[in-house]
Amino acid sequence: MVGVCPDRLETTVNPRHLYLSLCAAGLFLAMPVMAADQPYALVIHGGAGTLTRDAITDEVDAAIRADLNRSLDAGQAVLEAGGSSVDAVVAAVKTLEDSPYFNAGKGAVFTHEGRNELDASIMDGRTRSAGAVAGVRTVRNPIDLARAVMEQSPHVMLIGEGAERFARERGIAAAEPAYFRTEQRWQQLQQALERERAQASLPSSSYFGTVGAVALDRSGGLAAATSTGGMVNKRWGRVGDAPIIGAGTFADAGCGVSATGWGEYFIRLNVAHDICARMKYAKQPLAEAADAVVLEDLPALGGDGGVISMDANGGIRMPFNTRGMYRGWITVEGERGVAIFADEADVDARLSR
Amino acid sequence: MVGVCPDRLETTVNPRHLYLSLCAAGLFLAMPVMAADQPYALVIHGGAGTLTRDAITDEVDAAIRADLNRSLDAGQAVLEAGGSSVDAVVAAVKTLEDSPYFNAGKGAVFTHEGRNELDASIMDGRTRSAGAVAGVRTVRNPIDLARAVMEQSPHVMLIGEGAERFARERGIAAAEPAYFRTEQRWQQLQQALERERAQASLPSSSYFGTVGAVALDRSGGLAAATSTGGMVNKRWGRVGDAPIIGAGTFADAGCGVSATGWGEYFIRLNVAHDICARMKYAKQPLAEAADAVVLEDLPALGGDGGVISMDANGGIRMPFNTRGMYRGWITVEGERGVAIFADEADVDARLSR
Repeated sequence: MVGVCPDRLETTVNPRHLYLSLCAAGLFLAMPVMAADQPYALVIHGGAGTLTRDAITDEVDAAIRADLNRSLDAGQAVLEAGGSSVDAVVAAVKTLEDSPYFNAGKGAVFTHEGRNELDASIMDGRTRSAGAVAGVRTVRNPIDLARAVMEQSPHVMLIGEGAERFARERGIAAAEPAYFRTEQRWQQLQQALERERAQASLPSSSYFGTVGAVALDRSGGLAAATSTGGMVNKRWGRVGDAPIIGAGTFADAGCGVSATGWGEYFIRLNVAHDICARMKYAKQPLAEAADAVVLEDLPALGGDGGVISMDANGGIRMPFNTRGMYRGWITVEGERGVAIFADEADVDARLSR
Repeated sequence: MVGVCPDRLETTVNPRHLYLSLCAAGLFLAMPVMAADQPYALVIHGGAGTLTRDAITDEVDAAIRADLNRSLDAGQAVLEAGGSSVDAVVAAVKTLEDSPYFNAGKGAVFTHEGRNELDASIMDGRTRSAGAVAGVRTVRNPIDLARAVMEQSPHVMLIGEGAERFARERGIAAAEPAYFRTEQRWQQLQQALERERAQASLPSSSYFGTVGAVALDRSGGLAAATSTGGMVNKRWGRVGDAPIIGAGTFADAGCGVSATGWGEYFIRLNVAHDICARMKYAKQPLAEAADAVVLEDLPALGGDGGVISMDANGGIRMPFNTRGMYRGWITVEGERGVAIFADEADVDARLSR
């Protein structure tokens, strides 16, 4: 910023911007300084659902928490070094895609036909650029492909075989179908098929397991990303909210959201964008906006699930209306944690409940 | 409504609700009457773009206006008879899908590979139910399939071959690839391929031609629907805003929107939902909300196109930032018209410009 030198130099310090101000020859010059202590923040999820303590063994509980921590490590390494929020959410989400414990990438649920069809999306709040893919079967890390759509194509959304051709043209790492397979997910499909034959309804937990991340980087940019295998036993090329910009993923200058849950309801309520719109237009703080959508609108319509959300100051809110949500966070103050069950204290609870 | 009989009976008449009030034995009873003159409204579009008078012959101009009128007729017949806004927008959109002049159904543009890949979506503002399909090649009226997804599946969005399997299972009318083909669209692809070989950029009009409708029925329900062939010479399974709930189509209790234009920008701005969110959360009237998104936010990001939009009173706004938009309307007062170019007076211009 260049201007006429003011009579009195006022120094405005805000936690994310330090200005170097000069006054020389009657000219005023202010330039932002990349202060090493500008704060960053990161929040991740590995899906919401009917999680109870007796449903997972101690070993699995520990392994899931370890992978959530690995995901936080991956995102934090980027942010600590001054990298972009886009790089950070991709790093965090890839770690969860690579883990067999989450329904994204390796360990994704199976479709009715016994395949893995993967969806992912990403949005850069700084530019409102976005990328999304749906129904891809041969891409190792769908979030890498969503990012390539955002940065290396004129498009926002690519689907099916066309998206896979784009992946090959851009050299995105491929994977054989066998790579995604885990025995647990295969058994989950068999059980779902069994229930279907018995005309029993699916347990609502069948819908869950999506992964996602939202980050604020040292230069104040927000980004959000989401990746999923969708719903077990899905058919007819069903697509949920994860690859839908505005439903499962959204980021602008003031707000970033990644969602997980019963995707159909998240699309109908435009969950991710609605949280950001409440902040922008109704001037609701993040916690009020996110809670209203997830704890009021969503159950009123009959849906369940949760979101991770962040405001421009790195404030974090992680509401969910299920019994658990795999989640992890690093606050602007550097506090860090992971949690699974609803009754575990987390940053949300301390902040405002 | 039942209550204690008031001392004085006041009759409140609002244009959409006539109450029959009785006062007997000290009890007050009011019940809504389905008055035959409860107003309805309908607005349709056949795409926005760089339309100039010398670009189309008088014959084509007349034929397009005739088809817009046929679409209004189809929707009006439903609404006049007291049918639902969902039935009305489907009837209006099908008429435009069946016309070879619009980029939806018959007359859709060709992909890079010389195929027609169709997208459509619909939303019922009363229930916030929604249905969407993307990348279907063999369904005669994609809007029929989107509606079947909404009403006959537990899902909101189906894509590709899976969506086509669902169409066959539900008996949705199929069509051979040859049905969709028009010589004009084939030549448009050849020109696009030629320009691509010459490394020239595509004319922005390549993006346009989507069709859509928004209606308010006699019982106060809003619905919106959109259908498109997408962008000429599209590849990699590209999907635009038309099948994305919140981007190309949205309806709730107070607002319905169908969009047309450069789809990538409409997704990034969540155009349809953003207009409704401005009304709901910032209390902006429809005209202000729709104009802000289409005439300010959209060009600021670099995108172009337009929307048709309607509020709960049947108020209509049709802003576009291109040189023309095929459009037609029937107001709550029964005024009716069609227009193509930006300089033609329409209901918008009379209402508030």
